[in-house]
Amino acid sequence: MPLASGAPSPPSEMPARPYRMIHFFPPQIEKVRAKIPELIPKVDILLGNLEDAIPASDKEAARKGLIEVALNNDFGDTSLWTRINSLDSPWVLDDLLTIIPQAGDKLDVVMVPKVEGPWDIHYIDRLLAQLEAKYGIKKSLQVHAILETALGVSNVEEICAASPRMQGISLGPADLAASRRMKTTRVGGGHPSYQVIADPDAENPEAPRVSAQQDPWHYTLARMVDACNSAGILPFYGPFGAIDDPVAGEYQFRAAFLMGCVGTWTLHPSQIDIAKRAFSPTAEEVKTAKRIIEAMGDGTGTVMLDGRMQDDATFKQAQVMVQTAKVIAQRDSEYAELYGF
Amino acid sequence: MPLASGAPSPPSEMPARPYRMIHFFPPQIEKVRAKIPELIPKVDILLGNLEDAIPASDKEAARKGLIEVALNNDFGDTSLWTRINSLDSPWVLDDLLTIIPQAGDKLDVVMVPKVEGPWDIHYIDRLLAQLEAKYGIKKSLQVHAILETALGVSNVEEICAASPRMQGISLGPADLAASRRMKTTRVGGGHPSYQVIADPDAENPEAPRVSAQQDPWHYTLARMVDACNSAGILPFYGPFGAIDDPVAGEYQFRAAFLMGCVGTWTLHPSQIDIAKRAFSPTAEEVKTAKRIIEAMGDGTGTVMLDGRMQDDATFKQAQVMVQTAKVIAQRDSEYAELYGF
Amino acid sequence: MPLASGAPSPPSEMPARPYRMIHFFPPQIEKVRAKIPELIPKVDILLGNLEDAIPASDKEAARKGLIEVALNNDFGDTSLWTRINSLDSPWVLDDLLTIIPQAGDKLDVVMVPKVEGPWDIHYIDRLLAQLEAKYGIKKSLQVHAILETALGVSNVEEICAASPRMQGISLGPADLAASRRMKTTRVGGGHPSYQVIADPDAENPEAPRVSAQQDPWHYTLARMVDACNSAGILPFYGPFGAIDDPVAGEYQFRAAFLMGCVGTWTLHPSQIDIAKRAFSPTAEEVKTAKRIIEAMGDGTGTVMLDGRMQDDATFKQAQVMVQTAKVIAQRDSEYAELYGF
Amino acid sequence: MPLASGAPSPPSEMPARPYRMIHFFPPQIEKVRAKIPELIPKVDILLGNLEDAIPASDKEAARKGLIEVALNNDFGDTSLWTRINSLDSPWVLDDLLTIIPQAGDKLDVVMVPKVEGPWDIHYIDRLLAQLEAKYGIKKSLQVHAILETALGVSNVEEICAASPRMQGISLGPADLAASRRMKTTRVGGGHPSYQVIADPDAENPEAPRVSAQQDPWHYTLARMVDACNSAGILPFYGPFGAIDDPVAGEYQFRAAFLMGCVGTWTLHPSQIDIAKRAFSPTAEEVKTAKRIIEAMGDGTGTVMLDGRMQDDATFKQAQVMVQTAKVIAQRDSEYAELYGF
Amino acid sequence: MPLASGAPSPPSEMPARPYRMIHFFPPQIEKVRAKIPELIPKVDILLGNLEDAIPASDKEAARKGLIEVALNNDFGDTSLWTRINSLDSPWVLDDLLTIIPQAGDKLDVVMVPKVEGPWDIHYIDRLLAQLEAKYGIKKSLQVHAILETALGVSNVEEICAASPRMQGISLGPADLAASRRMKTTRVGGGHPSYQVIADPDAENPEAPRVSAQQDPWHYTLARMVDACNSAGILPFYGPFGAIDDPVAGEYQFRAAFLMGCVGTWTLHPSQIDIAKRAFSPTAEEVKTAKRIIEAMGDGTGTVMLDGRMQDDATFKQAQVMVQTAKVIAQRDSEYAELYGF
Amino acid sequence: MPLASGAPSPPSEMPARPYRMIHFFPPQIEKVRAKIPELIPKVDILLGNLEDAIPASDKEAARKGLIEVALNNDFGDTSLWTRINSLDSPWVLDDLLTIIPQAGDKLDVVMVPKVEGPWDIHYIDRLLAQLEAKYGIKKSLQVHAILETALGVSNVEEICAASPRMQGISLGPADLAASRRMKTTRVGGGHPSYQVIADPDAENPEAPRVSAQQDPWHYTLARMVDACNSAGILPFYGPFGAIDDPVAGEYQFRAAFLMGCVGTWTLHPSQIDIAKRAFSPTAEEVKTAKRIIEAMGDGTGTVMLDGRMQDDATFKQAQVMVQTAKVIAQRDSEYAELYGF
Repeated sequence: MPLASGAPSPPSEMPARPYRMIHFFPPQIEKVRAKIPELIPKVDILLGNLEDAIPASDKEAARKGLIEVALNNDFGDTSLWTRINSLDSPWVLDDLLTIIPQAGDKLDVVMVPKVEGPWDIHYIDRLLAQLEAKYGIKKSLQVHAILETALGVSNVEEICAASPRMQGISLGPADLAASRRMKTTRVGGGHPSYQVIADPDAENPEAPRVSAQQDPWHYTLARMVDACNSAGILPFYGPFGAIDDPVAGEYQFRAAFLMGCVGTWTLHPSQIDIAKRAFSPTAEEVKTAKRIIEAMGDGTGTVMLDGRMQDDATFKQAQVMVQTAKVIAQRDSEYAELYGF
Repeated sequence: MPLASGAPSPPSEMPARPYRMIHFFPPQIEKVRAKIPELIPKVDILLGNLEDAIPASDKEAARKGLIEVALNNDFGDTSLWTRINSLDSPWVLDDLLTIIPQAGDKLDVVMVPKVEGPWDIHYIDRLLAQLEAKYGIKKSLQVHAILETALGVSNVEEICAASPRMQGISLGPADLAASRRMKTTRVGGGHPSYQVIADPDAENPEAPRVSAQQDPWHYTLARMVDACNSAGILPFYGPFGAIDDPVAGEYQFRAAFLMGCVGTWTLHPSQIDIAKRAFSPTAEEVKTAKRIIEAMGDGTGTVMLDGRMQDDATFKQAQVMVQTAKVIAQRDSEYAELYGF
Repeated sequence: MPLASGAPSPPSEMPARPYRMIHFFPPQIEKVRAKIPELIPKVDILLGNLEDAIPASDKEAARKGLIEVALNNDFGDTSLWTRINSLDSPWVLDDLLTIIPQAGDKLDVVMVPKVEGPWDIHYIDRLLAQLEAKYGIKKSLQVHAILETALGVSNVEEICAASPRMQGISLGPADLAASRRMKTTRVGGGHPSYQVIADPDAENPEAPRVSAQQDPWHYTLARMVDACNSAGILPFYGPFGAIDDPVAGEYQFRAAFLMGCVGTWTLHPSQIDIAKRAFSPTAEEVKTAKRIIEAMGDGTGTVMLDGRMQDDATFKQAQVMVQTAKVIAQRDSEYAELYGF
Repeated sequence: MPLASGAPSPPSEMPARPYRMIHFFPPQIEKVRAKIPELIPKVDILLGNLEDAIPASDKEAARKGLIEVALNNDFGDTSLWTRINSLDSPWVLDDLLTIIPQAGDKLDVVMVPKVEGPWDIHYIDRLLAQLEAKYGIKKSLQVHAILETALGVSNVEEICAASPRMQGISLGPADLAASRRMKTTRVGGGHPSYQVIADPDAENPEAPRVSAQQDPWHYTLARMVDACNSAGILPFYGPFGAIDDPVAGEYQFRAAFLMGCVGTWTLHPSQIDIAKRAFSPTAEEVKTAKRIIEAMGDGTGTVMLDGRMQDDATFKQAQVMVQTAKVIAQRDSEYAELYGF
Repeated sequence: MPLASGAPSPPSEMPARPYRMIHFFPPQIEKVRAKIPELIPKVDILLGNLEDAIPASDKEAARKGLIEVALNNDFGDTSLWTRINSLDSPWVLDDLLTIIPQAGDKLDVVMVPKVEGPWDIHYIDRLLAQLEAKYGIKKSLQVHAILETALGVSNVEEICAASPRMQGISLGPADLAASRRMKTTRVGGGHPSYQVIADPDAENPEAPRVSAQQDPWHYTLARMVDACNSAGILPFYGPFGAIDDPVAGEYQFRAAFLMGCVGTWTLHPSQIDIAKRAFSPTAEEVKTAKRIIEAMGDGTGTVMLDGRMQDDATFKQAQVMVQTAKVIAQRDSEYAELYGF
Repeated sequence: MPLASGAPSPPSEMPARPYRMIHFFPPQIEKVRAKIPELIPKVDILLGNLEDAIPASDKEAARKGLIEVALNNDFGDTSLWTRINSLDSPWVLDDLLTIIPQAGDKLDVVMVPKVEGPWDIHYIDRLLAQLEAKYGIKKSLQVHAILETALGVSNVEEICAASPRMQGISLGPADLAASRRMKTTRVGGGHPSYQVIADPDAENPEAPRVSAQQDPWHYTLARMVDACNSAGILPFYGPFGAIDDPVAGEYQFRAAFLMGCVGTWTLHPSQIDIAKRAFSPTAEEVKTAKRIIEAMGDGTGTVMLDGRMQDDATFKQAQVMVQTAKVIAQRDSEYAELYGF
């Protein structure tokens, strides 16, 4: 305990398992359901989607499919989540009144879209409490919110702190763009319209000028990460829509990992391995972090390593890196080998 | 209504007319007043400026000139706004006590500079109410605030929600820079001092290193856009001072459009067409958006288009694009033709 | 006074002396203490460090060393600060109960690490009041907070306004990174994982694509600067850990200066001159600013200068630049000459 | 409109119909249901109780009975309300999922017990919205909260303003007493333990001393009335348990009427007439109020009446009295005659 | 200073002059104006009323009359206040634009009726600032609010703290009663409908029962007093309408004095002496307080006096009493003699 | 658990032991210390006073005396508390730095006077944490605040919720009276100046009129009780200064018990038995409560008892009464016998 020893320790809420990707599937499609058993060991989280991308005419089938998936599979260490329809939709009450009684014991987290303020969490919190009590659900279901309206961003700190059920938040860049009237039809990532151009060359004002593309999501993601950590919950990137551009996807995911996210959504099986790479530290990073920890002894004071000063604070940064690697290694033998744990 | 049908709809506050540029003019100058009739059809908003850039000795002439402009012109679909002096100046009370009684019925919006908190809006709100009642102004005047102090940014959500009169907010980068003690004399845009430099090449540490220029206004603009949309009002970029650098101006405006702004200020006639281009979607963007809407049918479910997945959320993004184009086309025949509406 | 004359004036809280660098020293090391007399004239602020980087076993020696430094030196115009251990450590109470009684009259500012909310400032505020009263300290000690947890960032406006003792805030990027679980072991500056990549060339999709590195600290620094200015206190950048990369350090410092910071930390003597350069306007910038001020007369109205319009707002920006230069020139003859004051 | 004419007008939210009593009935009892038709014309509001006083074993029968009552009766101008079980009970979800679909169109108000903060209203608000949409309820159901916990009193202003559905609040003195650990088993009214005793007679210190009994509910009721009026909703007294003491009941009800309540609960038929008397102005009061209104003409200025000065403010008080009488007279011929309307 | 010596001192904001009565006069009546010179020495505050009780047709004459009174009299130590019309009336802007320019230098306090929240104070605060600057008023006018709506009571703490101009608050029981729909046409004081009745005598249940009348204003006044003292401003009782019942008036005033008010309104000359008596401590009270102070020496520890224990806290209470008497004695020779100062 | 069974249960925070009186003693007086052993079994809480009533010259002796008392006595089930000097006094830091290291393990609660807001609790909370850690105090010390300033009352809800250390709050009527400038030198209880007088008899207007004395502390105590219960902490009455008037003391204490307080202060041994009587239910009350509980079976539904209706809510009230009696009986054999437990 800090008060007793003074030794620096990593943030207490370091997650105990990896959350690198939330893999979405449409549960109304039989072919998809058939492949669930082989997907389970490949992903950290499996999410049965009931909301956007599920046609209005398939909402009922999706609920049924999800219950079938939940009851007929053993998920082992993999989490099963669901995304319900938005709280102002005509479907959400049936989503909950159908899914929780029949499959509540197999679910870990309910993802709630278009959350705008703590009131939305209060609603879902109490409804889950009543359903858990009525149907004897043995675990307390957690809640994950998607940040996809301007008002949600303005209220993100209050949303994160609205209930002890809160597990985390994902960025929802497509709905958020529409809510802000951003002029884009892309889902996440950069946009060529957002650039900063260099000054003209005074000597040669007509010469072509360099411009640097900017990250349109920086403010949103950075504030979301702080809001989550302030409340002790986990921040996730969301969807990256350009499935045909895995390079840009990996850039985006890696940036989110650097900024503090623990994972992302994967909308297509091809994104699973990209997410795995992007949300796991490199072997190099883990090695450096281990060296810092070893060199720092009790974690106080300073040492020089490769010409850079390490102290109590970098010791903590190194612990974040190593601990992240450790929980990945426990779940994923490939990474265990890579890190040498 | 979402609760009835579940079909995704664009943000309810999509503006009913274009706001691409607020064109500033100094009303004390006769030559300028003479050209107003030909400016009216070229701009979306015309603003008679009483504040910064109007010399102290011309404040009275500016008020008079504005009243003359207001009374002697027919503005059609073009809005007439005024920017009053700041609430701690010796001029603002006379601005309002002169302009509202004589020209209140012709004005749409009062722009208030250097707003620092909701209290400033409360003041102007009540004073307008009293003047409207006393002088029988038939419309309820709207209020537009400029965000140009650090305290204003810290309070931007409360400012936006301070009154039903609030119409929108503009970024005021010059005053804001001074208030923050930013070390620049530029008005908006990037600055060569704000760069991130790449790591040295480990093989060749002395080699020149790439650096990327950064947007110093990202946080401010992004938070302002969310605050506006949370309160159902409109965000605008503000002045771009380098009239001699139209290229940089267009980059800046286009970035603001992408980020969610509906328009900008134009300080010089040469900026009008730049603003028009930057704050109107391209024909290509509109075409893509239309194809998404058509392909998505009732707006739920998914379709693949050019290798990218579209769903309820991108359907909404496409609606934002198309609806923006539509209101522009209704006002501007050149763009109507471009978009094919 | 604005209400009387209407003439624009710079922000009232323009600092009366330069704060370009807070130079850290470990007071337990005799060799370091011996060099203090020659350091004093070279730096704006000298800080005796008791916290991170001081080994647990040296905490007592560090307190003693600091008291020795404080009592045996004449600091002239240079400020003496100390950084105490964090409020949840086993050392902070002894830090204060030892240092304030013995050296309180020589200290200007107490830097408090890991501040999370106004409650931390309330604690230190009252404890200082009680110690000042008890030991007859003649000056009221000021407080400087370090922003190094996610919760601290979420509460930064309240922290800045928590007490009239608040003097300023520094960014603490290493602890903050750990608190956010950012995956980095760097201390400040950019990171190669945070990039935005350009779209592929449609003609040649396999061609290498440009990417632009992004500033991971933009949101944090920009919000911190606004919070400080809203409360009338001073924002500082913090440590830049890569002592072996002075080029990147200067980029980082210069960016912070542009964004509104008044100074930075220097962890190594080699960083002192870099900080001096980065946190002083260039001669060119000062010259331009002086020209604007001269051309603008009473500060209202407009003039054209080198093809750019100047008005009341740019007049204020120019005043910020010139006034910053003036206080530097008063302290630093080298810069006085450079600026021609 | 005040801004136009300056004439004082009564509070805009003067109710359009009388709310003198909410008469509770236990809907599971057949004999009770049989008497509903004759009760309807005698009471302003009829409430089918599902919560406290309904045995656990009768909860289902009570729901059924309420639906039967709702469907088989014509309520005319009399309102039909229900009190559901508390939000942390095992019954409330079934209460709502049973009652709203089957009898939602006949219900006016849902009374929610043990409300502790706005979150409770947010929950019920959204659940009602979803059920109304799903079952095509044509009216928007209103919500009435009972103030019966210490936390509820601390949050009463936020509760009142939590939703546009809020119709009013009742005091719940029995639960509130338990929540506060007040040492009483009475339901409402005074208590002999709460007295203030006069000073002893200095001449004769042993003489018996007068003591005055105090109102233990003054703070709660007064704050509740202000909270309701601040939000434009209606305050009600609640149950008076001593059915065998009609004199004390009438004192209590009359005090609540004076303090601003519009009505009370009646738990027994014998309380209906007491409530009617207590929550209707006397003929004398109405007569005086009419005289003030007549004497004051346009409502501004002053007149002397029976040695007391009347002005714009007493004119408003008189309007409250007369308007209250008018809506009672419209519903109740006995009172119409009494008042001479 | 407490921190230095530990000796208890009275609340720092003890007023430096008496405020026992605010005497209202209708300035449009010539006969009234003629008597002002003889009223000045008899009252602590003289208030020219422009609002309620001034007929709509006399508003202009009232302004004129007030200016005449202000300019033609020397007020000595007596304060001159005015009550303006309410902020939603058609008269208030003319009130201020007429009175401040012409008589601002003679006025001390502007009383604002029907204040509902801090926004009302923000409005008046800024408008006064602009008028003071424009017309060169040398003193900063203070603001006194009347608490006469339910919403105002709910916001009273924020109203008190809304501006450094805030001088105090008065209770406005007539408008407040109307706003709360209290069923009374009285202005202040008790009401026979608000009584608590004793339990029946078990032996003789039909025997007449004692009842005790209650104070309907207790909550409002007590909360108002705390809100004022929290913000360092002064609480006043307001009007007592029953001019023909001086006995009840004196009871009411005396109760307000006990509860912490510094003064009251007087609507009729006959109330001036009642207010003087009620808001001055009795000679007996002052004598007791002096004895406590003398006995307590440095103010710490305990002494027994007449069988009651005095300590640091009662020492402070005694100081409040004596200091109140002292400022009265300085102004009022009759009381100086009574107290023996 | 309510969600499982629906049976009503008393407030979860029913105290597990009696707190009927906090008996104050001046620890600097040897004679007093000598009697502590015989006082311990007679009181529920023993408080060593360091603040008001301890002369400035005895502060050090009082600390020493308290440590002696703490170390030399076995307190059994009796709590040992201390009241430290106020946070703005020159003594409080020494109080804590002396008492906690030497006697922290024997203390249960630190009473903090003149608390004005949550910041005061934050201060004491953190200082206690640091001292407990440093001196290895095995229990976490609790904090009890005294409500004795107007600002404290305005902030009472925030004070109660400021820390998990909060144990309770006492009313401090003497300091509070001074802070509010109430014109009284009494400590608690009623005051003859606070009366409401009946209307004159219309037939005989000169006849003497009844007046009823009012409780000046009603608002303060009622709001304090709610604030405590909202935060799950305990409300106490405070000092009753008129030791020579035990009759009035018992009235005051009994009223506080009825209103929800768990105990009071006793300043003199003669008040101990009065407090015991006043803060214990009567045998009659306990008997009635037991009968209600028995009659109500599972606690739901209704029964008639002596002509009054009992239901789930009165069942809870009865539980409060019986549970209060039980914890008293466990500690106090005299009461055990009285209640028949």
